[in-house]
Amino acid sequence: MARAHNFCAGPCTLPTEVLAELAAELPEFEGSGMSLIEMSHRDPVYDRIHHETMASLRELCSVPDDFSIQLLQGGATLQFAMVPMNLLTDGRPGAYAVTGSWAKKALADASLIGPTSVAWDGAEGGYTAMPTANELDLDDGLRYLHVTSNETIGGIRLPEFYDLPVRQVADMSSDYLTRAIPWDRFDVVYGGAQKNIGPAGLTVVFVRDSILDDIPASVPSYLSYATHAAADSLANTPPVFAVWATGKVLSWIAEQGGIPAMEERAARRSSMVYEAIDSSEGFYRSPVAVADRSHTNVVFRLGSDDLEARFLVEAEAAGLVNLKGHRSVGGIRASIYNALPTDSVQALVDHMTTFAGVNG
Amino acid sequence: MARAHNFCAGPCTLPTEVLAELAAELPEFEGSGMSLIEMSHRDPVYDRIHHETMASLRELCSVPDDFSIQLLQGGATLQFAMVPMNLLTDGRPGAYAVTGSWAKKALADASLIGPTSVAWDGAEGGYTAMPTANELDLDDGLRYLHVTSNETIGGIRLPEFYDLPVRQVADMSSDYLTRAIPWDRFDVVYGGAQKNIGPAGLTVVFVRDSILDDIPASVPSYLSYATHAAADSLANTPPVFAVWATGKVLSWIAEQGGIPAMEERAARRSSMVYEAIDSSEGFYRSPVAVADRSHTNVVFRLGSDDLEARFLVEAEAAGLVNLKGHRSVGGIRASIYNALPTDSVQALVDHMTTFAGVNG
Repeated sequence: MARAHNFCAGPCTLPTEVLAELAAELPEFEGSGMSLIEMSHRDPVYDRIHHETMASLRELCSVPDDFSIQLLQGGATLQFAMVPMNLLTDGRPGAYAVTGSWAKKALADASLIGPTSVAWDGAEGGYTAMPTANELDLDDGLRYLHVTSNETIGGIRLPEFYDLPVRQVADMSSDYLTRAIPWDRFDVVYGGAQKNIGPAGLTVVFVRDSILDDIPASVPSYLSYATHAAADSLANTPPVFAVWATGKVLSWIAEQGGIPAMEERAARRSSMVYEAIDSSEGFYRSPVAVADRSHTNVVFRLGSDDLEARFLVEAEAAGLVNLKGHRSVGGIRASIYNALPTDSVQALVDHMTTFAGVNG
Repeated sequence: MARAHNFCAGPCTLPTEVLAELAAELPEFEGSGMSLIEMSHRDPVYDRIHHETMASLRELCSVPDDFSIQLLQGGATLQFAMVPMNLLTDGRPGAYAVTGSWAKKALADASLIGPTSVAWDGAEGGYTAMPTANELDLDDGLRYLHVTSNETIGGIRLPEFYDLPVRQVADMSSDYLTRAIPWDRFDVVYGGAQKNIGPAGLTVVFVRDSILDDIPASVPSYLSYATHAAADSLANTPPVFAVWATGKVLSWIAEQGGIPAMEERAARRSSMVYEAIDSSEGFYRSPVAVADRSHTNVVFRLGSDDLEARFLVEAEAAGLVNLKGHRSVGGIRASIYNALPTDSVQALVDHMTTFAGVNG
């Protein structure tokens, strides 16, 4: 069939050029007599791919030399444990801005591991807004503030990163490589690859070197950032295919103009949908604070569950798939990640206009 | 170039049919309008692939109903931590049979997490033999005995699984699906996929249900076997490509005759190389105890480092690659995993014969 307009919240649409290259190169890599996925991870050929992926991340994200780039496994979910295991080591608590489902999970794991505090909790407002810096409850002597820069399910985004006296840790799974990172404010930045930068199976973690010395020797091998920093993420077998495919997506992002282009693109394309919502005279409504509207996960509602169900059925008939909101919140969610074609966003806007015209 | 004879210790050769299928299906999966690696892990199509991979494992390995099959990430290395985090919870120690590099790493992590004891250590003999059951030092009141059923680096293998009063935990990374597993003797069996059953990026773990109730609530989400058992390994985004590719390798194994065929094949093909060693009148020698010779990693030495270096250069010229022994032990290592063609083993034997004839 024709290529679907895929608004999945993750895994995500990949550039068709990347899929075609992977398919063409999969049976044999560069005349080596084998597939890259059959190759030793100590082979100079894989080593080059591995370090090219790291170098692309460093260049695209302007990562300073005093951060290591770690290509890990286990998703952001494993980072919910690794962050406190590596950082909550001297009695100082980690503060968490509880801005939605993912922040709650990060806090839940951290509170099993070390002292934590809640800097803010958006439960009362149904997690439809981000806190301003002034609203954060930050005690003295914190080890870090953990932020989720974009909440995939709630569809909210920090409009700007906080500038605070305490260093931050950010889960950027759903807005990775859609915005510049002010590195001086962070100790760790992490996210799964499968939304904005590659397929599932790879977690990219940026770790400030100065924290490595304070990681206790009691942290098990895979769970210690020191292990991966010392071995360039080759301490054990890396997820070869996902590293390779992500490297190709990063090259594609660079060709499009890098982070500035992705940032502009995310703002422009999410605006197309928000404008369709705002101009619908209430037929569609966005539940989230205007200032905090996500640029990658646009959440909206219709007048009734029945109308939403029909919207989804007719969208699917028009080739627009994976628009159903997360089961915990309902409604509609359009995830607009880096590799989604702008044509897909236009097709969604067209469907919204048509559907509102018939049913409004 | 022609397909290499790839004796890599991992990642490994995959069946050419599997590579061809992956390449053909990668751009679009079954008329869905997208690649399987772009699809939601909640999509019924991926859900089917995910559960088919699990069902193949259950059928091929005759896994009893009271074990969950967990499709995880992080390699055997992460299991070195997860096993003690989940099992060493009531004060009883885990005993470790230290049979080589991998067992040492498993013990090192466990000793950070809970009480451990050393049931045996092969350091004195240079890790060239496995202990018999009588040689194991097993105190009363152990939580488990951890065994590494095949040591990839040392090239030794448990000729038979132990039958003991204490339940065992096995790292089977390098002999997975090359032998039947007597399930009544095990609480956990684990291994990376990338040697015998698929590409890198997937770790397959079998967990006895009865241990789930005793996992402390203090184990973080990703690190708890309870999380993955309850969610069929869909608690967070799984490594989609690796699960998909592994499913295809499992189908290929089933077509070849399943575990009995793989077991016979591993014995027969490793014997081809051992016979070349034993009939070489000392030109080649195996450093390991005859009874414990690995069926998947055949380690051997020549008379000098210089001779070994030339053996490797000429092997590579003949298309035989990745035969260099692990840097920690030197020598030659031929890893003969499930998907390596028998022709490759024959080509190695031919090279050994020719090289010994010229240089012997």
